[in-house]
Amino acid sequence: MTISRSKIALFFIFFIYLSSTSSSAKKKQHAPCKELVLFFHDIIYNGQNKANATAAIVAAPEGSNRTILAGESHFGNIAVFDDPITLDNNLHSPPVGRAQGMYLYDTKNTFTAWLGFTFCLNSTEHQGTINFMGADPLMNKTRDVSIVGGTGDFFMHRGVATIMTDSYEGEVYFRLRVDMKFYDCW
Amino acid sequence: MTISRSKIALFFIFFIYLSSTSSSAKKKQHAPCKELVLFFHDIIYNGQNKANATAAIVAAPEGSNRTILAGESHFGNIAVFDDPITLDNNLHSPPVGRAQGMYLYDTKNTFTAWLGFTFCLNSTEHQGTINFMGADPLMNKTRDVSIVGGTGDFFMHRGVATIMTDSYEGEVYFRLRVDMKFYDCW
Amino acid sequence: MTISRSKIALFFIFFIYLSSTSSSAKKKQHAPCKELVLFFHDIIYNGQNKANATAAIVAAPEGSNRTILAGESHFGNIAVFDDPITLDNNLHSPPVGRAQGMYLYDTKNTFTAWLGFTFCLNSTEHQGTINFMGADPLMNKTRDVSIVGGTGDFFMHRGVATIMTDSYEGEVYFRLRVDMKFYDCW
Repeated sequence: MTISRSKIALFFIFFIYLSSTSSSAKKKQHAPCKELVLFFHDIIYNGQNKANATAAIVAAPEGSNRTILAGESHFGNIAVFDDPITLDNNLHSPPVGRAQGMYLYDTKNTFTAWLGFTFCLNSTEHQGTINFMGADPLMNKTRDVSIVGGTGDFFMHRGVATIMTDSYEGEVYFRLRVDMKFYDCW
Repeated sequence: MTISRSKIALFFIFFIYLSSTSSSAKKKQHAPCKELVLFFHDIIYNGQNKANATAAIVAAPEGSNRTILAGESHFGNIAVFDDPITLDNNLHSPPVGRAQGMYLYDTKNTFTAWLGFTFCLNSTEHQGTINFMGADPLMNKTRDVSIVGGTGDFFMHRGVATIMTDSYEGEVYFRLRVDMKFYDCW
Repeated sequence: MTISRSKIALFFIFFIYLSSTSSSAKKKQHAPCKELVLFFHDIIYNGQNKANATAAIVAAPEGSNRTILAGESHFGNIAVFDDPITLDNNLHSPPVGRAQGMYLYDTKNTFTAWLGFTFCLNSTEHQGTINFMGADPLMNKTRDVSIVGGTGDFFMHRGVATIMTDSYEGEVYFRLRVDMKFYDCW
């Protein structure tokens, strides 16, 4: 019995050691448990594209209208969107879901946005939602936002999404590439 | 000593095996560590119900006003709300807290919303806040959003909330039933 | 072999016991794995402070304008902000980042807000973003919101932030102190 106790103690120490090393390894490495790359396409209503538009400006500071983006880096504009999601960078590819939510322009002297939105995926490959939130400094090549939760195939998932402006046409069409890396997959 | 080492190794293998099975079991089962069902009641300001209203339209696309919901499935409307929360489906039951935040209508051809809100609970049973975010396709019987965090009794909690439209009267009163399942309880 | 099996069983029981106690201990204690205190400074545009303003009202209920906060506890106002973050309570200290996002006033009879915002930190000490969401009952001395995610130095972090109104001048300048406690640090 004495021996078996000492063995348990030994094991316990060993287990503590294992936990601490595995935890410090996690700090360095962060291998994602799931990855996914998708594109979404934002067509902002400009007063002349009602049929095609997938987003509309719904709020603006006093003195601005909501048909064109406000001057001075669009500071204060809030846009609501329902954008098609595709597997590749072609707007006309069959959509695998919709990106729904809002962005707002929040700086006076450069272009930065703040995002709160959801990917609603509905395809043979993926069923469920992914919820995103974060700052989007548009002039940077890549911007990291948080994946704060999910449902369906993405039940309780968390991770980081890297957003890139893949293409744009004036201030009407924006194509965003989203590289999702999930680190908490359940 | 040789024996005890081999036993530790054996145990280690056993432990790895346990971890992997328990992790794959978690993927299938997901038993909630806490459950809660609450109702909240949304009365939208329509220009004539100032005293009773708990929500107001505060943003709309150019060409719409903010007293009535915009045409075409209310696309672009943002509403801000402070709704009473009750334990049952009766608007006049004593409130156990307030649901506070915003929703926005984000599609042109059907009714879908996007939600960001907080349950502020203040009763003998529950003290604390629960934070929600997600897409709300209103025409579906049930809609799943993420519980992304909490404070007080819901410190660091995460989970999934299933929202159902329990009742509505025209476009003024909506009663929502929220089935919360927490899977990360701390 | 029989002995070693019984030992493994014994250990297994011991391990289950350890897990359960450590989990119940976690419920009581919650020692943060990281702490951070920062200040941010919100100067609301009032029609006369365009150069200095860091926030603007961009949405309001029908009948209100967006230059001054709406009557009745500002119910329905949404403000968009890009506020400097400092290490101490001095507006003129060198900023270590920007607080970007939105708040909305959501009650009719008192002052409460709802917050969705990001700390974008860019200093020698901290690089990365922290994402916040929650209710902000302004009249309370302290208000707890959720830290729902992070990137960079705050990769995948979660926690609770306690917000305090450190100072204010009329309805134009607000200084907020944010005590961040992270409990999930990666």
